[in-house]
Amino acid sequence: MKKIILLATIFALCSFKPQKPVNVVFFGDSITEYAVQPNGFIALLQQRLKDEHKDADYMVSGAGIGGNKIYDLYLRYEDDVLVRNPDVVVIWVGVNDVWHKRLAGTGTDYDKFGRFYTALIKKFQARKIKLVLCTPACIGEKTDYSNELDGDLNKYSQCIRDLAKQYNCGLVDFRSLFHAYGLNNNPQNKDNGILTKDGVHLNDEGNKFAATLMYKAVIN
Amino acid sequence: MKKIILLATIFALCSFKPQKPVNVVFFGDSITEYAVQPNGFIALLQQRLKDEHKDADYMVSGAGIGGNKIYDLYLRYEDDVLVRNPDVVVIWVGVNDVWHKRLAGTGTDYDKFGRFYTALIKKFQARKIKLVLCTPACIGEKTDYSNELDGDLNKYSQCIRDLAKQYNCGLVDFRSLFHAYGLNNNPQNKDNGILTKDGVHLNDEGNKFAATLMYKAVIN
Amino acid sequence: MKKIILLATIFALCSFKPQKPVNVVFFGDSITEYAVQPNGFIALLQQRLKDEHKDADYMVSGAGIGGNKIYDLYLRYEDDVLVRNPDVVVIWVGVNDVWHKRLAGTGTDYDKFGRFYTALIKKFQARKIKLVLCTPACIGEKTDYSNELDGDLNKYSQCIRDLAKQYNCGLVDFRSLFHAYGLNNNPQNKDNGILTKDGVHLNDEGNKFAATLMYKAVIN
Amino acid sequence: MKKIILLATIFALCSFKPQKPVNVVFFGDSITEYAVQPNGFIALLQQRLKDEHKDADYMVSGAGIGGNKIYDLYLRYEDDVLVRNPDVVVIWVGVNDVWHKRLAGTGTDYDKFGRFYTALIKKFQARKIKLVLCTPACIGEKTDYSNELDGDLNKYSQCIRDLAKQYNCGLVDFRSLFHAYGLNNNPQNKDNGILTKDGVHLNDEGNKFAATLMYKAVIN
Repeated sequence: MKKIILLATIFALCSFKPQKPVNVVFFGDSITEYAVQPNGFIALLQQRLKDEHKDADYMVSGAGIGGNKIYDLYLRYEDDVLVRNPDVVVIWVGVNDVWHKRLAGTGTDYDKFGRFYTALIKKFQARKIKLVLCTPACIGEKTDYSNELDGDLNKYSQCIRDLAKQYNCGLVDFRSLFHAYGLNNNPQNKDNGILTKDGVHLNDEGNKFAATLMYKAVIN
Repeated sequence: MKKIILLATIFALCSFKPQKPVNVVFFGDSITEYAVQPNGFIALLQQRLKDEHKDADYMVSGAGIGGNKIYDLYLRYEDDVLVRNPDVVVIWVGVNDVWHKRLAGTGTDYDKFGRFYTALIKKFQARKIKLVLCTPACIGEKTDYSNELDGDLNKYSQCIRDLAKQYNCGLVDFRSLFHAYGLNNNPQNKDNGILTKDGVHLNDEGNKFAATLMYKAVIN
Repeated sequence: MKKIILLATIFALCSFKPQKPVNVVFFGDSITEYAVQPNGFIALLQQRLKDEHKDADYMVSGAGIGGNKIYDLYLRYEDDVLVRNPDVVVIWVGVNDVWHKRLAGTGTDYDKFGRFYTALIKKFQARKIKLVLCTPACIGEKTDYSNELDGDLNKYSQCIRDLAKQYNCGLVDFRSLFHAYGLNNNPQNKDNGILTKDGVHLNDEGNKFAATLMYKAVIN
Repeated sequence: MKKIILLATIFALCSFKPQKPVNVVFFGDSITEYAVQPNGFIALLQQRLKDEHKDADYMVSGAGIGGNKIYDLYLRYEDDVLVRNPDVVVIWVGVNDVWHKRLAGTGTDYDKFGRFYTALIKKFQARKIKLVLCTPACIGEKTDYSNELDGDLNKYSQCIRDLAKQYNCGLVDFRSLFHAYGLNNNPQNKDNGILTKDGVHLNDEGNKFAATLMYKAVIN
């Protein structure tokens, strides 16, 4: 009898014991910055967690700043991410590292991209934070690899895939997934308007697509 | 009787009348400049014409200058090509228009590439010169479109294909042909050493490959 | 008697014979393109010629296109300038040759800038057209040579000064004149708002300044 | 008598008491990397300290890596500098931040240059390390501000001067000092060969000049 009471008490305590939600921080550039706006993929994730009554289990937030490259993330990971004490960090960066070579002469050398990315991974993993890495989706949505920066984006994406494998991180390979999506949904080989507004930043369809992929990578 | 003698004379004159060889000028950048050296594709063409006893029918020469972009060709087409009074001009340009964006900040804007190329075509066609256009082969020989400048090269190559069609020119689509060759012969996805020495300039294999393609396009 | 009448008639005819005005074409980039708008320096010149009753003696017009570099002028000098049969051509170019290195990776190599400029000078001088060359004024109006592109602008300006001397052309050295003006009128070392709206394109003050200098160079 | 013995003992103790030398680390790019080689300015400093019997008082070492920009220093300040437990750090960086815009499209945005520099200063000052900041000397030694990158170098140098003032650091203003030296010693306006071998890297004269300035700033 005593035993039963004890067990009951334990169950009761457990069910009341406040479960700390898994804290997920999305860390990146303007794509992540915009994702917290209505219809952004982080907002969509939050809504879905609510709809599925998982919002007590997962807490998701964004730490994106427009124009950020890998070294900008390295500069601010303490102030903007570690302070939130995350369990999972999703890193989505790379577009500006490639794009700004053309835009402003201030992109990121390939070797240094890998070096800073590695350093960032190590800093998070030293804190037992789980990581999900994302490849840059696109700069231009043409599917025949005739977007001006396709070559460099493919190169940097491969670096991220390799790092994910080497450091045992999750991976959302947006680069491949966007390309596959385009092959099916962009028969006119358009430069934008499929998953992005402007070739880079997600439109509503792109945000839904990203939300589904992020959910799979982070929540399940 | 008189008539017969006359005819005979005419035939005799015709058969002695020296046949002017078809004058082919290769017009381009360093790839064309090197092509006149031993084992270069122009030297190989000259040897083959000799071997096949066609050297009285075709005269081939090179007018390549290292670092040339489309507008450099436009600046010197009179002094370096028209003066040779060619029947056929083979234009092979585009690598530097893309590459120098990265190397020196002095590549060629996409729209201006098309504008100068069109102007050059018109100048030659106004002189009844037959044209063969060539797409740029590669800057890096990786076959998965992860060479840094693949996207831009694909874009500029498409421009050349469109111009060849629009202005009824011959086309040697090196871009596609090199890629196809690489898929069959570069299983390790190497950056160079397949058809080029350094990712751009032809090695012996590349010169043989180019000579065969040029022969087909120009000599028949 | 008859002779006298004849002479008188000749004199009368001569005095009525319409004097062909000196035809001045301003050839350049956006700065020249905007100059034909109200308050632009070409519009100001036209007004001044009218006010001084010299509009029968001089005809001034603009042939500026935004974004033009030296080789763009070379491409269109026949269609846009020679067709107007000018007596004097004022060439004002150079800003984009330097600026586009940073903006788009498509500036003009220093040696090619000189080469195209020389070719253009020769084409005009072969037609007995008088030339006035202008140095690029500024990209940023700070006076301590801390505008990002000051070094390159100074370098290209020197090239133009040398060409003006070598080919015996007129020169309006906007680069030096704007700097001198700034030393006197820009005590706060501002980036724009002195003679330009945005560091490059002339404001009202800049157009007045340019009109005065152009008048001195071309009309007097 | 006792007193004398006591004093003698004190003197003896003092002279044996090991004085920890002031530990100075030079932190920078290739200019600093080469400075430890024979005739490099760090080697010259070491020799001079020895000659003046101050080598027990000061310890100087180099932590330069070729191609480094401000964010590279930020990435490695712990591993390469803090581990040496320095009392003084001399930061000399900036050439590549400007130069690589042109060389590789991977320079450093002006605002981010300031942001990383500030972060680095704070990290060192939090450890009570004294700082001496240096402005980049030159990319090209012409004295009329017609070296291609003079404008940008002047701009970034001013940023460093402002930071030195704001954070109360020492300053060696190589930018101004090299320019002043050139005005006196480079009458032909040469591009290199005055204080540098190639416009950037110090020759023997440049290393002597730098050693003297560094001595004044660090050793007194």
